[in-house]
Amino acid sequence: MDGALNLVDGVRAGETRAIARLMSMAEGRPDACAAEMAEIHRMAGRAHIVGLTGVPGSGKSTLVHALAKALRRDGRKVGIVAVDPSSPYSGGAILGDRVRMSDLATDDGVFIRSLATRGALGGLARAALDTVDILDAAGFDIVMIETVGVGQDEVDIAEAAESVLVVSAPGLGDGIQAIKAGVLEIADIHVVSKCDKEEASRTVADLKSMLTLGSTARVRYGWDVPVMRTSAETGQGTTELVEMLDKHREQLIESGERTLRRRRILQTRILKTAEDMLRRRIGEGDTLDSAVDRSLNGDISPHQAAEELLKTI
Amino acid sequence: MDGALNLVDGVRAGETRAIARLMSMAEGRPDACAAEMAEIHRMAGRAHIVGLTGVPGSGKSTLVHALAKALRRDGRKVGIVAVDPSSPYSGGAILGDRVRMSDLATDDGVFIRSLATRGALGGLARAALDTVDILDAAGFDIVMIETVGVGQDEVDIAEAAESVLVVSAPGLGDGIQAIKAGVLEIADIHVVSKCDKEEASRTVADLKSMLTLGSTARVRYGWDVPVMRTSAETGQGTTELVEMLDKHREQLIESGERTLRRRRILQTRILKTAEDMLRRRIGEGDTLDSAVDRSLNGDISPHQAAEELLKTI
Repeated sequence: MDGALNLVDGVRAGETRAIARLMSMAEGRPDACAAEMAEIHRMAGRAHIVGLTGVPGSGKSTLVHALAKALRRDGRKVGIVAVDPSSPYSGGAILGDRVRMSDLATDDGVFIRSLATRGALGGLARAALDTVDILDAAGFDIVMIETVGVGQDEVDIAEAAESVLVVSAPGLGDGIQAIKAGVLEIADIHVVSKCDKEEASRTVADLKSMLTLGSTARVRYGWDVPVMRTSAETGQGTTELVEMLDKHREQLIESGERTLRRRRILQTRILKTAEDMLRRRIGEGDTLDSAVDRSLNGDISPHQAAEELLKTI
Repeated sequence: MDGALNLVDGVRAGETRAIARLMSMAEGRPDACAAEMAEIHRMAGRAHIVGLTGVPGSGKSTLVHALAKALRRDGRKVGIVAVDPSSPYSGGAILGDRVRMSDLATDDGVFIRSLATRGALGGLARAALDTVDILDAAGFDIVMIETVGVGQDEVDIAEAAESVLVVSAPGLGDGIQAIKAGVLEIADIHVVSKCDKEEASRTVADLKSMLTLGSTARVRYGWDVPVMRTSAETGQGTTELVEMLDKHREQLIESGERTLRRRRILQTRILKTAEDMLRRRIGEGDTLDSAVDRSLNGDISPHQAAEELLKTI
C-alpha cells in the first residue's frame, strides 16, 4: 500500500522513474496496479490529448518532433505515446538505423513512451489509453498519441483524443492514398507535411474539396476543419499548428464539445479495458483449451464456445 | 427453423444468394444466426485457408487476382475475403476509379467478399473468420483472406490461416519498409511481387538473409520458408506459387501441423467472438452509459467500470 502510494506520488511529482514504472505495470499487469490507476484517473483530466495519425510515410513522427520542440519553447511539458512500428521512437533492432530524436530524449519536459503493435492478441488500445492517463496525471500539458493510420485498433486509438490531427504527405502511391481515405474523416485538423514539395498544393486542394463535401464535425460544434501546411525542411507551419491546436481546444471548451469528447474517450477506454480483461481471464485457465477442443470436434460451435467462456469469467 | 435449414442447405449447395445472405447475417447479427453458423461449422474443415498480407502498395490484390485465375484454370473453386480498404475488391466511391477485376466477378467458381475495416469498434476479425467458415462449408477449395499488413486485428486475421503468404514489393519507401518488418515473421511463404523491377533481387536477397537468421516455423514442422518471385507484368511465378501452396498444405498435413493450425485458427476465432459478444452486449443496455458517467465523475476508475460491465453481462 505504501509502495502504491509512493508510486502514485512519484507520478504526481513528475518523477521519470515512477512514471516509467507505473507505465510498465499498467501495460503488462493491469490487475496488479488497479488501485494506483484509480488514483491516477482521479488526478487526470487537465492535459490536452492530441491524436496524430496518417499513413506510413506521411511524416507523422517528424511532425510530432517539430511540435514537441515548439511546445517546449513555450515552456509546456510534452508527453508522447507512439503506437507505430515505423516511428523512430519505437527504436529496437529493426529501426536501429533511424534517427533517434535524441534532443528530446534528454529533455525532462518531454516523456516519450513507445508501445509495440505486435505480440499478444489485443490489449494495445487499452494500454495506450492508460499510458495517456498517466502522463496527464503526471502534469504533462499536452499528450500526443501517434498511431499509424491503418488498422482498426490503431485508428480507434487516434480517435480517442480531444484533437485529432490527420497527416497527409504529397505524392504517395496509389495503395497509400486509398488506405488514407479511411482516416480522413476523423480529422479536426488536417496537416499536409512536406510542403516544400511541388505536389503539396494538389494535396491541400484535394483535402479542401473533400471538406466542402460536408463534415459532421463542423456542424456539431462550429469548428471549420482547417488544412494546415508544414515542412520539416523549411520549418514552415509548426508555430501556426501549435496555435491552431490551442484554438481547437478553446473551441472544444466553449462549445461544450470537450465534455462530449472526454466522455467518448472514456467510453472507448472502458470498452477496450473490458475486452482486455476478458482476453486475459479467458487465457488464464484451461477453459479456453477445453472449449477449443470441443469446438474442433464439432460438439459446439465457436459461437457457443464464446458464450460458455463469457459465462465462466 | 425451416428458413434456417434452407439457408444452410443453400450454402451447402454453393448457391450464391444463400451464401451472401448468411454472410450478411453473420456480419451484422451473429446472435440471430447462431444455429445456422453452428451447422456451417460442422460442415467446414475441407478448404485450404490461405492468409495473404503485405503493406499498402505491395501488390497483394494483384497477386490474389493472379492466384485466383490460376486456380480456376485448375478447376478449383476460390473464395476471397478482402479486409483491406486499399483492395480493388472493396469498391465503393473511394475506389470507384480502380480496376474492378470484373473477369472474376462473373465467374461462379469465385466468390469475393469484402469487409470494411472502419466503423463500429471491433468485430472485424470475428466477422472475417465467420465469412471464411461459410466459404469453406460452401465447398470452395481454397479460401484466401487478404488483409493489409498493418494493424493488430488485420495481422491477427492474416495469421488465422493454414498457409500465410507475406507479399513484399521492391523499392517502397522507408516508412513502409519499417512497417513491413512487423509482419515478415508470420510468413510460411514470402512472395516478392513486381519482379520485373530491377530492385527485386535486392528484396529477395534481403528476405533470404533475414530467413537464415532463423525461423521458428521451420524448426517446428520441417518447412523451409521459400522466397518466391512473381510479376503481374510478365505473369512470372503464379504457377510456381500455386504449386508451393499445395506443397505447403501437404507438409502441414504430413507433419501434423495442420491440426495445430486449425486449432490456432479456432482459438483466435473463439476469442474474437467472445470479445465481439462482450462489445455488443455492453453496448445494448444503459449499463455502459452509467459506468462512463460514474467514471467521468471520478466515482470509479475505468478499470472498475470495466469490471462491473463484465459482471453484468
